[in-house]
Amino acid sequence: MTTWLPIPADSDFSIHNLPFGIIETSNGRITAGVPVGDYVIDLVLAADAGLFGARRPHVRLFEQPTLNSFIALGNDFARRIRRRLQLWLTNDKRPDDAEYLLLERAQVRPLMPLRIGDYTDFYSSIEHATNVGKMFRPDNPLLPNWRWLPVGYHGRSSSIVIDGTPIRRPHGQILPKGADTPIFSATQQLDFELEMAFVIGKESRLGQPIPIEQAEEHIFGLLLFNDWSARDIQRWEYVPLGPFLGKNFASSISPWIVTLDALKPFRTRGPVQKPKPLDYLRIRGWHHYDINLEVSIRPQNGPETVVCRTNTRYLYWSMAQQLAHHTVNGCNVRPGDLMASGTISGPQPDSFGSLLELAWGGQKPIPLADGSTRTFLLDGDTVTLRAYAQKGNIRVGFGQVSGTVLPGWVERGK
Amino acid sequence: MTTWLPIPADSDFSIHNLPFGIIETSNGRITAGVPVGDYVIDLVLAADAGLFGARRPHVRLFEQPTLNSFIALGNDFARRIRRRLQLWLTNDKRPDDAEYLLLERAQVRPLMPLRIGDYTDFYSSIEHATNVGKMFRPDNPLLPNWRWLPVGYHGRSSSIVIDGTPIRRPHGQILPKGADTPIFSATQQLDFELEMAFVIGKESRLGQPIPIEQAEEHIFGLLLFNDWSARDIQRWEYVPLGPFLGKNFASSISPWIVTLDALKPFRTRGPVQKPKPLDYLRIRGWHHYDINLEVSIRPQNGPETVVCRTNTRYLYWSMAQQLAHHTVNGCNVRPGDLMASGTISGPQPDSFGSLLELAWGGQKPIPLADGSTRTFLLDGDTVTLRAYAQKGNIRVGFGQVSGTVLPGWVERGK
Repeated sequence: MTTWLPIPADSDFSIHNLPFGIIETSNGRITAGVPVGDYVIDLVLAADAGLFGARRPHVRLFEQPTLNSFIALGNDFARRIRRRLQLWLTNDKRPDDAEYLLLERAQVRPLMPLRIGDYTDFYSSIEHATNVGKMFRPDNPLLPNWRWLPVGYHGRSSSIVIDGTPIRRPHGQILPKGADTPIFSATQQLDFELEMAFVIGKESRLGQPIPIEQAEEHIFGLLLFNDWSARDIQRWEYVPLGPFLGKNFASSISPWIVTLDALKPFRTRGPVQKPKPLDYLRIRGWHHYDINLEVSIRPQNGPETVVCRTNTRYLYWSMAQQLAHHTVNGCNVRPGDLMASGTISGPQPDSFGSLLELAWGGQKPIPLADGSTRTFLLDGDTVTLRAYAQKGNIRVGFGQVSGTVLPGWVERGK
Repeated sequence: MTTWLPIPADSDFSIHNLPFGIIETSNGRITAGVPVGDYVIDLVLAADAGLFGARRPHVRLFEQPTLNSFIALGNDFARRIRRRLQLWLTNDKRPDDAEYLLLERAQVRPLMPLRIGDYTDFYSSIEHATNVGKMFRPDNPLLPNWRWLPVGYHGRSSSIVIDGTPIRRPHGQILPKGADTPIFSATQQLDFELEMAFVIGKESRLGQPIPIEQAEEHIFGLLLFNDWSARDIQRWEYVPLGPFLGKNFASSISPWIVTLDALKPFRTRGPVQKPKPLDYLRIRGWHHYDINLEVSIRPQNGPETVVCRTNTRYLYWSMAQQLAHHTVNGCNVRPGDLMASGTISGPQPDSFGSLLELAWGGQKPIPLADGSTRTFLLDGDTVTLRAYAQKGNIRVGFGQVSGTVLPGWVERGK
């Protein structure tokens, strides 16, 4: 496919990608948009120009403040829209309406693309689970259930924010080492977690499990997910009911939802699963993805340092397995629900997806380009997650999700 | 206050109560409604009749399919609506429009009153936490953090259903006693959990904790909550990230939201908290409530047996403490969010709020009126939760939440 639009070779937003998001234009209008190269296609204007057939219903659809209604129409519908855009972009010559429909990406502001109903976080990297297990439960790192089921838990959807939103350092109860009485303090162990999340497209009915062979039909697409974590708060609170305030102060997502269709060329074989999963978790074919990931830290006024490079193919459990498991008890899903992978760590120490693991619980400070080191995040640090898949000259990327740490609010008088 | 409307003395819906819900009328119209005695006041018709002042905006508000927009207007607004209804109900004589505005309660169908954003489940009964702890972790029943903070975790909002919705017995992974390999099966340990939940009225901003003195301003009202649980699934999955499929197949709520205003006469002193909570959890005054609770089981074609009688005053942590804790890290709340208490158990064995505790993990089967016994729920069993508060002849009740257990779906071929 060749296009009349000049697209940089290293752009995440090639004509093979065409992900979906919601933007605010420079004059304050809200519209669905599709980034391509250094531009974003304004879907309301594209619909109004007749690019998708019948004008009115498409304009209305893309005028919504979130993508939920669009997503709920199903993957076939999104496929048709992407196909129309690809045809338009690969016209023999630049169409007359290009000037009008393409907004400069630098001139628009991506907004939260979803009204998220429920958000689930899995724990599907065996390297991450083992690393964290070693630190939190030295005697018992990988628990007996881990290889049998994709462990997951429910998280908070209200505090999921879009790329660029600053993150306030949270306060909470912390049990100092060796103490038996907790203190109230700003977290001293603020961390990121490098994750990918998938967006539910097609709903399921309460009481009706999604068979694993049909799971991917319910997935609209993927985005980057930073599950900010306060390790000291988490450690004191998480037994027996799981993480709560150590996680729910904020999670950040990238603005563009990359469709499963666009990721098809990057399917790959998953790891060998031993023991063999139970029937409802078994599926033929390749359901893992080869997506390169990286995390960088940029101190206030300092240069950026990449601190982690890893890949989604390291995940033990696939999205199809996660979704089949999540619904096997009849739990229903709704369009706009988000399911995150859990921290994605690889086998090498520089492929670990959190500072907790990279600096091994504070024992191995990570050097940054400005000469400083990190065991956990400092105020003013900006954390950026990036991801892309590449095969030959087909590149499909996710852009980035970034957030800067703000100091905690002033403590209330004692 | 005396009313021209005949209200049975034991009605949950006295003129002191006036809770809010959403109903479908006998001719299929959806409207907000307020139950009183054996009737429901149709709020759309009441608004249209001018009961609340300006007609149009009130009609629009009460025509919504959920109460979220109404709730978001704040507790003062709801207070004014209740006050107007009380004035109307205590007119010297029956108003002419009574015939028109009062629907027979038996003729309307209560619907899910809320679009629930996030749902949180606490674990705030010390008796329940100790009982369950003894069974799940004999060496270590009440964990060290329990008396320091209201332990809680996030649950699933998509599977919260209204009173009367049948509950499909869930399947899942279960580790048989003594085995080291899980099996896939319908749960053999289906249970109820008797809980109350509060509904968030006023939102808070991300990054800004709600000080405990202001917590109750953010609470719109309360309802009954049955947190259906599959103990065998839960036991195998819950370490280390908490309950997931053992809980998220269904929770049931009662249809009427009883306002904190209506519950004011039933405020009571809470238990003495030792150790003394940290500053952000301390508050003067009475913030617990004296609400009588009961649970019954009715086998298919059998009579009903009350298996538990308890009271919300047994809860260790108050709602104000729960909400102050939930937001102390900056986690935001939104109108329609639901926060449940966790199972409410009292000190006596017949005041335990779950079958797990009542039958002590299967060791002490509970006798029912039809001569059968229960350790866990059987297909066809109907579980009903009821609650009311009473002081002199002021009675404020919650109605009920009920659900019947359906057999699990047929297993997929092996």
